Amino acid sequence: MTATPIYKSKNTRGGGVLLYEEIVAKVREMIKVGTYLPGERIPSVRTLSRQMRVSVNTVMEAYLRLENAGLIEARPRSGYYVCAPQRQAVCRQASGAPLPAIVPSPVTIDDAALQVMQAIGNPKLVPLGSGVPNIDLLPIDRLNRMLGSESKRFPLQSVAYPSARGHKRLRTEIVKRLLDAGCSLMPDDIIITSGCVEATTLALQAVCRHGDTVAIGSPVYPTFLRAIEWMGLKVLEIPYNSEGMNLDVLDYAIRQNPVHACITIANFNNPLGSLLPNERKHQLVELLAKHEIPLIEDDVYGDLCFGSNRPAAIKSFDKYGLVLYCSSFSKTLAPGYRVGWIAPGRFLDKVLHLKTLLNIATASPTQLTVTEFLTNGGYDRHLRTLRKVYARQIAKMLDAVGRYFPHGTHVNPPEGGYILWVVMPDGFDSFKLYELALNEGISIAPGNIFTLSDRYRNCFRLNAALWSEQIEQALETLGRLAKTLIK
Amino acid sequence: MTATPIYKSKNTRGGGVLLYEEIVAKVREMIKVGTYLPGERIPSVRTLSRQMRVSVNTVMEAYLRLENAGLIEARPRSGYYVCAPQRQAVCRQASGAPLPAIVPSPVTIDDAALQVMQAIGNPKLVPLGSGVPNIDLLPIDRLNRMLGSESKRFPLQSVAYPSARGHKRLRTEIVKRLLDAGCSLMPDDIIITSGCVEATTLALQAVCRHGDTVAIGSPVYPTFLRAIEWMGLKVLEIPYNSEGMNLDVLDYAIRQNPVHACITIANFNNPLGSLLPNERKHQLVELLAKHEIPLIEDDVYGDLCFGSNRPAAIKSFDKYGLVLYCSSFSKTLAPGYRVGWIAPGRFLDKVLHLKTLLNIATASPTQLTVTEFLTNGGYDRHLRTLRKVYARQIAKMLDAVGRYFPHGTHVNPPEGGYILWVVMPDGFDSFKLYELALNEGISIAPGNIFTLSDRYRNCFRLNAALWSEQIEQALETLGRLAKTLIK
Repeated sequence: MTATPIYKSKNTRGGGVLLYEEIVAKVREMIKVGTYLPGERIPSVRTLSRQMRVSVNTVMEAYLRLENAGLIEARPRSGYYVCAPQRQAVCRQASGAPLPAIVPSPVTIDDAALQVMQAIGNPKLVPLGSGVPNIDLLPIDRLNRMLGSESKRFPLQSVAYPSARGHKRLRTEIVKRLLDAGCSLMPDDIIITSGCVEATTLALQAVCRHGDTVAIGSPVYPTFLRAIEWMGLKVLEIPYNSEGMNLDVLDYAIRQNPVHACITIANFNNPLGSLLPNERKHQLVELLAKHEIPLIEDDVYGDLCFGSNRPAAIKSFDKYGLVLYCSSFSKTLAPGYRVGWIAPGRFLDKVLHLKTLLNIATASPTQLTVTEFLTNGGYDRHLRTLRKVYARQIAKMLDAVGRYFPHGTHVNPPEGGYILWVVMPDGFDSFKLYELALNEGISIAPGNIFTLSDRYRNCFRLNAALWSEQIEQALETLGRLAKTLIK
Repeated sequence: MTATPIYKSKNTRGGGVLLYEEIVAKVREMIKVGTYLPGERIPSVRTLSRQMRVSVNTVMEAYLRLENAGLIEARPRSGYYVCAPQRQAVCRQASGAPLPAIVPSPVTIDDAALQVMQAIGNPKLVPLGSGVPNIDLLPIDRLNRMLGSESKRFPLQSVAYPSARGHKRLRTEIVKRLLDAGCSLMPDDIIITSGCVEATTLALQAVCRHGDTVAIGSPVYPTFLRAIEWMGLKVLEIPYNSEGMNLDVLDYAIRQNPVHACITIANFNNPLGSLLPNERKHQLVELLAKHEIPLIEDDVYGDLCFGSNRPAAIKSFDKYGLVLYCSSFSKTLAPGYRVGWIAPGRFLDKVLHLKTLLNIATASPTQLTVTEFLTNGGYDRHLRTLRKVYARQIAKMLDAVGRYFPHGTHVNPPEGGYILWVVMPDGFDSFKLYELALNEGISIAPGNIFTLSDRYRNCFRLNAALWSEQIEQALETLGRLAKTLIK
């Protein structure tokens, strides 16, 4: 690439629109005339920024336009490459998504998405679309025994108004466990909530006002989208790549727009199953801290790692009190107990205030029971079993997808959790697959419920929490149906 | 009063501003020249409206201005009277309030009010300021036994995700009991919530958008004010008179402003202790229905009547599906269980959607336990005891206030609940009393936390849920302190 600067003067930077358009035009031209061939690496953002004497942001913006136009693609930890001509029409991220336009969207979830979310919960279907854990793996009898014994041991505490923060003994146990996630917190840094969804809702309400913009890893856990819609916030969908939220795009988006909060699931993301490497967690914290943007971390799958060491929380890299860490025991102990928590950092007072306004406090008896299970119930042993079973089932499901699904089906093997994100070839319509599957009594979660755009039409989510002959048959059926939809 | 009409033509009604100003001027003049003497009754709204051939609303508006100016006062079920000259400066309602300007206020709760609310919860104080029930009167042991037995009887239901609506058996028991409140509902008309506060929060969120205006009975239960502040809504405080919300003022306010919802506690109001007569409940429903305004009814004290018959819910008069009825078992069974419910009428789908976004569902084990208590626990017998004890304690507290407090202290004896609203003579500063009482280790709830204005400076709330020698001594101390504050 020529080193001739198209940089004009420092003063034109404010109106930098022209600059990036010039870069876009230049790169387009060079690809057209064969200076850079399909598959060839083009200069990195930093190199081009130096060469052209323009800011990194200007180059980023130009490269995003070129990606959106399907001319180049980003490869994680490698750089930007010219797309193969047949791919230049639809250039996708590892997550299966074309890069989004970086403009906040007001949230309006269509009826189709709402219907899908309802259908997914239908207990009569083979529940491959649901996100719920396997109840049979939970220590039901021990928990229920403890419910009786603990409420007898603490009769008044069980019945009286709990404090808005929640029981101190429970917060103490949680703090001990968070050491495994790399977090050194005090019991008073924690507020008990009625599950993780309540924690994230409180977090959003604590840091955003009506009309604010939230940057959110995309594909998006649908409940986040619905909560954001309800709160009248706007959304910036930041695509995930194979290792989590694309920080370059996030950085770019923050510079382009006022961003008031960021949400992500870094550990065993729902729906991608991906794990953000520690280095990226650190970078994410620093990037957001630079702009004083609070980060809401949902770590509800963190305990379900397949390896022996639980991954670090993003919160563990937070020196600024800007991370609002949310989790619960719904995936590992008892969703019906509705016991979760939030460590809201510098937003503690605000979240505590909101919690009292919302429902005064979280129910007491289930708090007492979870406390006892964490103290004397063998939670670690229980987690080891859970991890082993889920790892085995994920392997079985990966195997089944490989056997039954058409050529071109892609799945990133997750390192934890019980969720699989399936990427079908371009042009595949997962909503049609969802409809065909419903007719066969099977639910899947089609890509459209994970975005406000049309991005994940070729993707869908499967739940590997359950395994049985029926599930395997359902996967065979799904594979057969998928083949009928391949053009 | 002269019958000479100041009515000009039908066509000037749209610009009716001049009309009411003319009435104001006329009445003012007549009081000034002694046509109507202090203490004398002036023509009723209807009479004057007929006499002057202007609409009832125009006269209402004029009389409100005259009330605000301290020239006349409304006496419940009697009419309007010329104020005594010394009262013309501050003219008050039966609740102790001057009539508010009918202009919606954005909600900003000052630090003093927040501090009071925190101090009131301090367990080291004699808790006359708190609003919590007497835990010793609750069936603690039976409830805690049932927690163990029910979760063993329904082990899966106890641990698994409950439905967002809540357990059907519980909703069925609630529907049976609501017959006592005059409501004929079906189990599917009900959604279980984590307490009554969550029910009212969901109701507000279902019917209001950011920036909307809520008409609310004043003095206001402080949690309502705080929830409304948090949601970015505006408030119209509608004064209560001795029998509940002043419907004339409400009617007037609705015509003056766009009102998007109304909230009230009709049965044993917190903080007034008052009971809205059935006829007024009916009128309230019809008035709001005429303008399609949803009504949020908080009936959490309804079961605590002193008579043998529970009062009707406003909901029982609702033919339109416009009443969102909210209640809980926090005052009668176990606040720590966080089990409440809402019957949201035509807003059911919206509330159900919001409930799933907020925290998916209410905890299961406490739902199971309350179901069992309602079915086989002797809830009626338990209520009879509770009512008897609270009636006795209210009587004792009324007696103690009569004995220890200075001349001019006024209390309306409530017919249910455990709360007393004390109205001191004009000019009394209940916040000073609150501060003096804190020094003596006693909490009271001063009037300022029940309003956004300066209205209830001479009022405060006492809690009669507890009775002991210590409580009686505290009342004696309060009475002594109050005397030092009388000018």
